[in-house]
Amino acid sequence: MSLEKVSANRVANGVLTKYKFPSTSLGLDTNVNVYVPDGADKSPVPVLFYLAGLTCTEDTGAQKGGLFNMAGKHRIALVFPDTSPRGAGVEGEDDDWQLGTGAGFYINANNPKWKHYNMYDLVAKELPDVLSKAGLGLDMSRLSITGHSMGGHGALSLYLKDPARFKSCSAFAPICNPSVVPWGQGAFSNYLVAKTKSSPPAEWLAHDASHLLAASQAEKLNILVDVGTDDQFLKAGQLTPEALEAAYEERKKSRKSDDFTLRRQEGYDHSYYFISTFSPEHVEFHAKYLNA
Amino acid sequence: MSLEKVSANRVANGVLTKYKFPSTSLGLDTNVNVYVPDGADKSPVPVLFYLAGLTCTEDTGAQKGGLFNMAGKHRIALVFPDTSPRGAGVEGEDDDWQLGTGAGFYINANNPKWKHYNMYDLVAKELPDVLSKAGLGLDMSRLSITGHSMGGHGALSLYLKDPARFKSCSAFAPICNPSVVPWGQGAFSNYLVAKTKSSPPAEWLAHDASHLLAASQAEKLNILVDVGTDDQFLKAGQLTPEALEAAYEERKKSRKSDDFTLRRQEGYDHSYYFISTFSPEHVEFHAKYLNA
Repeated sequence: MSLEKVSANRVANGVLTKYKFPSTSLGLDTNVNVYVPDGADKSPVPVLFYLAGLTCTEDTGAQKGGLFNMAGKHRIALVFPDTSPRGAGVEGEDDDWQLGTGAGFYINANNPKWKHYNMYDLVAKELPDVLSKAGLGLDMSRLSITGHSMGGHGALSLYLKDPARFKSCSAFAPICNPSVVPWGQGAFSNYLVAKTKSSPPAEWLAHDASHLLAASQAEKLNILVDVGTDDQFLKAGQLTPEALEAAYEERKKSRKSDDFTLRRQEGYDHSYYFISTFSPEHVEFHAKYLNA
Repeated sequence: MSLEKVSANRVANGVLTKYKFPSTSLGLDTNVNVYVPDGADKSPVPVLFYLAGLTCTEDTGAQKGGLFNMAGKHRIALVFPDTSPRGAGVEGEDDDWQLGTGAGFYINANNPKWKHYNMYDLVAKELPDVLSKAGLGLDMSRLSITGHSMGGHGALSLYLKDPARFKSCSAFAPICNPSVVPWGQGAFSNYLVAKTKSSPPAEWLAHDASHLLAASQAEKLNILVDVGTDDQFLKAGQLTPEALEAAYEERKKSRKSDDFTLRRQEGYDHSYYFISTFSPEHVEFHAKYLNA
């Protein structure tokens, strides 16, 4: 495994480096941006993954997310993966912004047509492994995850699938219940071959944050979610935070120790202006657990 | 004068609105992004102009500059003008990223070929006038200015031409001495018809921050400048902060009350990663004077 350095920019008392490497999960080269605060070589730092939304790349959150200064203050590394394989060669993968390129949905496709689309393995397994072995001073035993929209679905679903791996999870305007909304249905019906006859199929529910939260046996969950009330995709029924809230209402009857907050932010929309307003608070939320 | 609302996004406890209007300075429509913190309608707020660099638009500083949260905290409005006329129809204006479209240099061209290129009038006169009359709650008697690269030249030169109009000035990686560096020479030799025979011509020096600082009769100047030591354009000799420092060294012999700071930031480059690292400090610098 060789990380090839593509570029480096100093930011927030650290360095943001773009690496390219041949991903075994994807069977293709992929890019990742990694911010490491100064001194990590001497004293390893915890890590926060940021998963971006539809149409984005590894650069979007880095350029517009406003995460660095607070991460630098708390000495937290940031990892910005890409949102899909690039150049997988699937017919039509560039035709629809909601499917294919830029729309990997952080799951492993089991439909042979989409064989390169294994963003779950890339983000949940390969990147933590590759980056922890790269000598960057990243302490992957202290890992948290956040994301926006499709990446909010990614953050919540990765966390709820394996909460022991992450200290905390947050999300901006996440797709909370993908198995029953158009974005999730469009992706899941293409990427996943479902053998179960139920509706939604069990193969879809396995990646659905609201379903995973309802089914979670985790002792304690640490989750912060923000959604703007003027979010055009909230209004279009793609985000459905009420599904996540309903799952949590049921769960909290028996799990009193969770740190679960879902906020509706008055007047904010789906854009990075919304994210950059609240991202410092999200980094602080994660810092509480990463630096505990 | 009618401001047409193009878009609006809530950010940092305020609203960023993109307006389009027919500029009399340019003889063309132009766009401007204006961030107004909540409550300005009841209690008018001071204003900070941000002038962007070559190739940028009114969106660049807004999307990547990281200015909003600190501006919101101090209740300062932000104004992001475009960097040149658009669609002026000058032959070759789109051929060179250092001249023409995206490269207005915040001066008034007196070369008839570039008759629409009056970015000085737009930024220094028309925008403050139009925006103060728009009922947005902007108090243009409390106005400061900042900018990046070409926009750093713009901020410094507008300030030094008329320091009584501005409470303070700051700049990120500014072109400090445009009349003797390639970027400035390329722009000034095209936009300005020089009648003086001196070298550089007086018509160029009139827009040169280092020259203006040396000649300034202002009682007190408030200036903060940051330049990264790994800035590729610093290394290429386009920025020459030493010229601004030399002018200040001479001036400070007689003017002890200036608030003048020029910092070299180790390892930072010319990118928005550099700007977003230090922009909160710049906003705080301006807040000190705008809210005094």
